[in-house]
Amino acid sequence: MNEQRNPWFETTVQQLNDPQNQRVWSVIVSLFGDLAQQKGAQVSGGALTRIITPMGIKPEAIRVALHRLRKDGWIESARSGRASVHYLTEYGRSQSAAVSPRIYERRAATPGNWHLLIAQDGAGQATLDEVLLLSNYVAVNRTTALGHGPVPRSLDDLMAAEVSRIAVPGWLKARLFPEPLRDACAALQHDLARIPPPPAGLTPAQTGTLRTLIVHRWRRVVLRHPDLPPSFHPADWAGETCRDLVFQLLDQLPLPELSALDTPPE
Amino acid sequence: MNEQRNPWFETTVQQLNDPQNQRVWSVIVSLFGDLAQQKGAQVSGGALTRIITPMGIKPEAIRVALHRLRKDGWIESARSGRASVHYLTEYGRSQSAAVSPRIYERRAATPGNWHLLIAQDGAGQATLDEVLLLSNYVAVNRTTALGHGPVPRSLDDLMAAEVSRIAVPGWLKARLFPEPLRDACAALQHDLARIPPPPAGLTPAQTGTLRTLIVHRWRRVVLRHPDLPPSFHPADWAGETCRDLVFQLLDQLPLPELSALDTPPE
Repeated sequence: MNEQRNPWFETTVQQLNDPQNQRVWSVIVSLFGDLAQQKGAQVSGGALTRIITPMGIKPEAIRVALHRLRKDGWIESARSGRASVHYLTEYGRSQSAAVSPRIYERRAATPGNWHLLIAQDGAGQATLDEVLLLSNYVAVNRTTALGHGPVPRSLDDLMAAEVSRIAVPGWLKARLFPEPLRDACAALQHDLARIPPPPAGLTPAQTGTLRTLIVHRWRRVVLRHPDLPPSFHPADWAGETCRDLVFQLLDQLPLPELSALDTPPE
Repeated sequence: MNEQRNPWFETTVQQLNDPQNQRVWSVIVSLFGDLAQQKGAQVSGGALTRIITPMGIKPEAIRVALHRLRKDGWIESARSGRASVHYLTEYGRSQSAAVSPRIYERRAATPGNWHLLIAQDGAGQATLDEVLLLSNYVAVNRTTALGHGPVPRSLDDLMAAEVSRIAVPGWLKARLFPEPLRDACAALQHDLARIPPPPAGLTPAQTGTLRTLIVHRWRRVVLRHPDLPPSFHPADWAGETCRDLVFQLLDQLPLPELSALDTPPE
């Protein structure tokens, strides 16, 4: 059951491993979202181990994370003969499906139809806080939310202004794309850009490891900033370059069949 | 030099007299703006007394107010034989000319081309405070100014959004047209509406008294609120009704010749 040694694979895994504190449960969420999101898809305990341990994560840590994900209602586990299998619950699948369009979108969305919702000082902020829970709004400051799509009609206590053109100052760019996010994105760009094209002969599990790492890094960048047109991007924003690099690599690492993950390498 | 008794005149003056604390210097500013704004226009001390004393203001109070207006650079006084004459300084005339278009506008302006300027919490408010000194801006809240006309290009630290449609909540209407202003406006409407058409035979000075009172009351309403389209008006806003009543009355009280003010009544 030992994977073939592959220096390209080992180097690339090292480069892609998130330099920040890696949360195993979050890696597993990325893995299921990428490899086993559809209904009925199952990943064996063995496959999970083969995909995740090359990242330097111990089997014990995987067990702890699976326990936590079961407790949180994301994952269920079952026995299949002597082996265990794991799969997303309905809840886990719906959570995963909710963010997949943004993670796997090859072209940056450029929503139009902007509007501003503006609250009264003090009193109005409660309504605004509700609005900001919706995914199509971002906070401009304590009393202003910027959203796209139609203007809601029910928000009597907010001033609503349909917007035809916006000039975005530096402080707002920095607020929407804060420094830790810009840094994470620049680091991802740097890591992705220096990966040579994948060689032939990767095992399905190795492909799974690489895809999981790429999707995991990208997920933590793409889901932490709102879909906004280029005029909102700071000058040093590497998000769109990252997006291109992510899909170039994923295209070279096609999704393995789940059944192939359990086939021991020849 | 006694004016003819005219019951209509006396009743109307009483109705138009500002119920609020009357500032004599401010009445004189209204008077010069209406009767003697053009370069070279002079009002004799006698004419001033004949126009103002029917409002219940004593000659001594007129002298004090003229002294103050001279000290503030609004008015100059000169001797003409045994009589004194008073006229606006360059400064006083330019101040008066700056607000005349708004006071004497018969149709409510309906500016289009709206934009919002939005400041960062805290830091950005200084720039916004500067912007709010301009006459084409109103404050929406502590970080937002609404303006009309072209978007300024120099305000790098404000978010600028050109606006194509606005829904105005109640709190903003109340902020732009606060209760004391709405009350003053409703009172003016009430007072103007119950004035019967002016009878024939008013003296030029009586016409001056009435015009000054009307302009003075209207000035204190029209200059205290921004030019905003009807969608910004509170439901009980009487401003536009007042405007109509003001010009109906002024049209029936044509501006007297300055020379006629010094002709003793037959």
